[in-house]
Amino acid sequence: MATFGLIEYKDASPEVRAIYDDIMATRKTDWINDFWKAIAHDPATLKRTWEDIKQIMAPGALDPLTKELIYVAVSVTNNCHYCIASHTASAKNKGMTDAMFKELQAVIGMANETNKLVTGYQVEIDDRFKTP
Amino acid sequence: MATFGLIEYKDASPEVRAIYDDIMATRKTDWINDFWKAIAHDPATLKRTWEDIKQIMAPGALDPLTKELIYVAVSVTNNCHYCIASHTASAKNKGMTDAMFKELQAVIGMANETNKLVTGYQVEIDDRFKTP
Amino acid sequence: MATFGLIEYKDASPEVRAIYDDIMATRKTDWINDFWKAIAHDPATLKRTWEDIKQIMAPGALDPLTKELIYVAVSVTNNCHYCIASHTASAKNKGMTDAMFKELQAVIGMANETNKLVTGYQVEIDDRFKTP
Amino acid sequence: MATFGLIEYKDASPEVRAIYDDIMATRKTDWINDFWKAIAHDPATLKRTWEDIKQIMAPGALDPLTKELIYVAVSVTNNCHYCIASHTASAKNKGMTDAMFKELQAVIGMANETNKLVTGYQVEIDDRFKTP
Amino acid sequence: MATFGLIEYKDASPEVRAIYDDIMATRKTDWINDFWKAIAHDPATLKRTWEDIKQIMAPGALDPLTKELIYVAVSVTNNCHYCIASHTASAKNKGMTDAMFKELQAVIGMANETNKLVTGYQVEIDDRFKTP
Amino acid sequence: MATFGLIEYKDASPEVRAIYDDIMATRKTDWINDFWKAIAHDPATLKRTWEDIKQIMAPGALDPLTKELIYVAVSVTNNCHYCIASHTASAKNKGMTDAMFKELQAVIGMANETNKLVTGYQVEIDDRFKTP
Repeated sequence: MATFGLIEYKDASPEVRAIYDDIMATRKTDWINDFWKAIAHDPATLKRTWEDIKQIMAPGALDPLTKELIYVAVSVTNNCHYCIASHTASAKNKGMTDAMFKELQAVIGMANETNKLVTGYQVEIDDRFKTP
Repeated sequence: MATFGLIEYKDASPEVRAIYDDIMATRKTDWINDFWKAIAHDPATLKRTWEDIKQIMAPGALDPLTKELIYVAVSVTNNCHYCIASHTASAKNKGMTDAMFKELQAVIGMANETNKLVTGYQVEIDDRFKTP
Repeated sequence: MATFGLIEYKDASPEVRAIYDDIMATRKTDWINDFWKAIAHDPATLKRTWEDIKQIMAPGALDPLTKELIYVAVSVTNNCHYCIASHTASAKNKGMTDAMFKELQAVIGMANETNKLVTGYQVEIDDRFKTP
Repeated sequence: MATFGLIEYKDASPEVRAIYDDIMATRKTDWINDFWKAIAHDPATLKRTWEDIKQIMAPGALDPLTKELIYVAVSVTNNCHYCIASHTASAKNKGMTDAMFKELQAVIGMANETNKLVTGYQVEIDDRFKTP
Repeated sequence: MATFGLIEYKDASPEVRAIYDDIMATRKTDWINDFWKAIAHDPATLKRTWEDIKQIMAPGALDPLTKELIYVAVSVTNNCHYCIASHTASAKNKGMTDAMFKELQAVIGMANETNKLVTGYQVEIDDRFKTP
Repeated sequence: MATFGLIEYKDASPEVRAIYDDIMATRKTDWINDFWKAIAHDPATLKRTWEDIKQIMAPGALDPLTKELIYVAVSVTNNCHYCIASHTASAKNKGMTDAMFKELQAVIGMANETNKLVTGYQVEIDDRFKTP
């Protein structure tokens, strides 16, 4: 349950509808997922978040699928179930195969393990890694 | 400072040297970073960790650079400075450009932000994301 | 489901009832939320936790509402759904408006983003911030 | 050490200088802290982050000091040392007294403790907290 | 819901069945919990994870119950509900009493609190703790 | 650097000295580590934290060494370097051998890995684990 309930398109202000329209146009879909309908209670946050996402997730030096894999890696590490579900779906839409999903999870698990081995053994950064 | 100091090649047991040799051969380098020298105090952990890493980070459905980017994303989210320094260096060795680094950081930052907006607004998972 | 089930007032020992009574008196309510009924299985933890909370959350240099906002910020960052739900409710009881809730979430999201940009770019602390 | 070194004002592009100027004007200072000089390598991230921060941290339903306290709470929970140092300094500049600092830390500590007691005892959310 | 559904014994490949058989034999049970049935979609991860767990959780310098308590402590700190439920059950099977459970949770809560007090007060490591 | 500097015994108020004396007497040492000297700026937090620690870490259903191992596990998972250094030292004082240290780190690493595999594969809790 969202704290404030969800704002559906038909009930949205023109300001919010404009963002919803841009989300659907950009994503080539007629559907808005609940995250946007929840934060739409704060149109400033809705607008800022969407514009940031749109800029950051666009094709660039990294392709959109790679960006989604990174998004899933952060979301799993943060234990955000909504984010895992939604970005795993997005990654599939952008071409993530089952084999890629499995390797993604293996890397995430491994990284979380070695992060803690480094920390527990109190390993200091090698000088070689400090050279810019 | 590592809890136990570091085990240099010349002081290592044959068992540990064999792993060091495999690390250098696999990575085509004559250098071992301090993480391995720290966990070498526990040869079982050294062996298991190296074999897991070797298997997981090998080319597969995901290319090695993409795997390093995912490793960095987890390490930043976990705030593991050693891991960030070492895997950022690895990513550069595998072809990460400055432009890719910047986009990687932007995605990591954005994902951490929206992970918390989802959580703070207590958004439930859309049914559409639950369909396998 | 709590690991041990919940200890209701009617089933509680005199020691536990005394804490329940103090919680209700302090909070001017006739209701105990399930957190307390769960940890009541360990009366020492119940007593210590309640006394600490009572001392820490009392009005002081910071007002009680500000303290609740900080509690929510920690709980969102830790991804503790129960804590988010209960302390968001407490904050509302203490005067948090919808506008305040939205700004709170925006700050939490932003802080989580810049925490990671700082970390990923490996920025060192400015000398000026080190001067006491 | 920042991954790329820091971009000083005198070496900055006009685009970056315009942001630096706005930061200094908004904060009524002639000094830029290293976070901005690090992310200035990515002018898009610098611009977006500054504009978001400027919007979010401005006075609103919550006063600027309260927002800094929330920022510190997130940064401590995330263990981001740079962010703790810089936002503790900002909070002092905006009026945080020693007494407020101490209560802030006490609340952060307490919240982190009860977050884990709730989780370890596997307490489910009370129905009463689910009612919007 | 697991992303891929669960692989039951009767539907498993010989490779996966062999791992399932070893899990049941090692644990002296005729039951496989869903974690294994979920990661069985990636037989390499299933095999590696099981072999690592089997090696690490075996009796050694630390007894199996102590290892389960440590597992629960990590899982609570990471807020992993599945892991808390499964390893709390395992700990009970290995002899964890109610009194031990309660003390475990108290230590976990306390450690999370002081971790943040140390961090918020920006305490540096005592020289005495740096001596190997 | 502690935010406020450290309060040495000779400069402490009688209230703070009484706690320092109790810490040294309880621990059978003539030394106070810097954590206590930092939070001594807030005598209420110093007193509350010490009394809680003293109660929680005392011998009970779990022995003091096991409690220190749990403390280290939480501190590594939270990436708190001070806490890792101080509680690793405490654990050694209470009898942790090198072999125990190594197994402790292996379990911590493994738990962090499987916590994320569970999360990434979105595994739901088995009914069998839900039965109290």
